[in-house]
Amino acid sequence: MRSKNMRLNRQIEDVAQLRQEARQAISFDAAFRARLRDLVLWRRDVRRFRRDPLPDGMLESLLELACLAPSVGLSQPWRFVVVEDSARRSAVRENFRLCNAEALAAQPAHRAALYARLKLAGLDEAPVHFAVFADRTTTRGHDLGRRTMPEMIDYSAVTAVHTIWLAARAQGIGLGWISILDPTAMTAILTVPPAWKFIGYFCLGYPAAEDTIPELEQMGWEERSAPPSMVVRR
Amino acid sequence: MRSKNMRLNRQIEDVAQLRQEARQAISFDAAFRARLRDLVLWRRDVRRFRRDPLPDGMLESLLELACLAPSVGLSQPWRFVVVEDSARRSAVRENFRLCNAEALAAQPAHRAALYARLKLAGLDEAPVHFAVFADRTTTRGHDLGRRTMPEMIDYSAVTAVHTIWLAARAQGIGLGWISILDPTAMTAILTVPPAWKFIGYFCLGYPAAEDTIPELEQMGWEERSAPPSMVVRR
Repeated sequence: MRSKNMRLNRQIEDVAQLRQEARQAISFDAAFRARLRDLVLWRRDVRRFRRDPLPDGMLESLLELACLAPSVGLSQPWRFVVVEDSARRSAVRENFRLCNAEALAAQPAHRAALYARLKLAGLDEAPVHFAVFADRTTTRGHDLGRRTMPEMIDYSAVTAVHTIWLAARAQGIGLGWISILDPTAMTAILTVPPAWKFIGYFCLGYPAAEDTIPELEQMGWEERSAPPSMVVRR
Repeated sequence: MRSKNMRLNRQIEDVAQLRQEARQAISFDAAFRARLRDLVLWRRDVRRFRRDPLPDGMLESLLELACLAPSVGLSQPWRFVVVEDSARRSAVRENFRLCNAEALAAQPAHRAALYARLKLAGLDEAPVHFAVFADRTTTRGHDLGRRTMPEMIDYSAVTAVHTIWLAARAQGIGLGWISILDPTAMTAILTVPPAWKFIGYFCLGYPAAEDTIPELEQMGWEERSAPPSMVVRR
């Protein structure tokens, strides 16, 4: 009896071992890592889109991948609102115009002309629009990891957005993140629960041009600084 | 003179065209996209680390890539605090123990035993520790895109973290995000400016095991839900 149990245990261990080995089999090579670096280098915040539609199913496949992003306590708090209704799209555009005019008015005199030249959204051209919210009221995850940092819910939704950004770029598709909007207005325009926190409004489509240099840098708005200036040691 | 100008203009256009074509040359194929999907599938929040150190320069190379993450107005607000001092590491561990004990005490009776069994941080074993903060006071980016949403600064730092997460996994290295900490205590322990917002504390190292199933799901804490439940159309 004892030896039978031992044999069984050994078999279970073997199976666990095999399963472990199968899972450990995945690894990424230097060529993939180089392409991943290219992906990060070529990802842009896109504001100039071609009007071509995305292939059928593309948005759904990007959203599906986004749902594999990390989330605090496995809470999966991301809520995607795909905006197709033209009246709602117009209301979003109108809110952007208002907020952007206010932002322009708040610019210091020496930067106002430059600000006015920036194209900050592709709302007129991009074929796909969606908003992302974070549901802080979700019971999923049972509050794990968010007692001292309730904002972890929002951060989880941000990693889902970033997943879409990279996966879209790998398809030659650009994403633009629009934050020059009033979050309260977005909740009303999109008729979502008031408890959902607005994370951003996004345009998705084929970019008019591709570049490794952010448009804000090309336009002289800001330049990138060297990474060491953002690292301290303790 | 006119024809000379026209010729010059044509040359300039040719150069712009060539430059554009060179830049458009980058594209990613189906094989890369499949591996990118694998990367997202195999990324985990790691809490069980081997003690082996990372190769020299690995952390720096990950941080450098992180600095190519998107940031609102090109503000680059991420601040990386690499924690090497053993007294500071001990203080972080102590704060985690305190916050985790409080979280355990706050669990409903029927989930407390399960919570107590979870391993929620790899602070004892992971060779590399770092914290990430977001500098909301930075003048970089000249406030573009954060007038109505100042939290965009924090979200930018989150995309930098997520970049590290994916790039590390592509090297076979695991990252664990610890949020069961008191942000005010972190600012004090790591002596950083009080205006820096604490985003998270991170362990980095080789994982003891690899899996496509989150440990929280394996342990029965939470399960993943189907993506369609997180998408609405408007």
